[in-house]
Amino acid sequence: MISETPSPPYFAVIFTSLRTDADGDYAETADELLARASRQPGFLGAERARSPDGWGISVTYWESLDAIEAWENDAAHVAAKRLGREKWIRAYALRVARVDRSSRWEADAPGG
Amino acid sequence: MISETPSPPYFAVIFTSLRTDADGDYAETADELLARASRQPGFLGAERARSPDGWGISVTYWESLDAIEAWENDAAHVAAKRLGREKWIRAYALRVARVDRSSRWEADAPGG
Repeated sequence: MISETPSPPYFAVIFTSLRTDADGDYAETADELLARASRQPGFLGAERARSPDGWGISVTYWESLDAIEAWENDAAHVAAKRLGREKWIRAYALRVARVDRSSRWEADAPGG
Repeated sequence: MISETPSPPYFAVIFTSLRTDADGDYAETADELLARASRQPGFLGAERARSPDGWGISVTYWESLDAIEAWENDAAHVAAKRLGREKWIRAYALRVARVDRSSRWEADAPGG
């Protein structure tokens, strides 16, 4: 789903990853991690997609760089990332960015 | 795949969208559009994922905001976006961001 983010500026963490073939508790762990992220101070939203070929992108939105840093240092997050590298993730790129402009569109929106 | 982007800063366009059920030439048009983007001045790379439920995220990376603006005004791009809104896309969010930090990891990388 599309996150109801406020007017810019705010911050985004773009996480692009390739899954391994291992299945295990990946989906459950990822969902738990996202639920935990959503309870952190400064969390604004998340958007995720994963193609059947194993490539996925998740973007989380945050009020500040401090909020991102606090989440990166969260003990449960650190543990989940270690588990991810050991079991589920073959490669990833992580980018931290400042969102300066945004727009939305919906097919059924009034005037859309 | 993960884009071989240079050291930050550079810019990202994060496009999150929900497909309609219509199929038609969507994949072909999206591929053509990405090929066209990749020939624009300042294009640095692209990453895409689309879940079977219809939600997708594509991120394109650019050297400058001017490069992004030029691409947004590209006639073929404008026409493809209009077609997308008419036929294939039910909702989208578009965010322009400045990437200030990045890291990468691969399972088989030396020392990884």
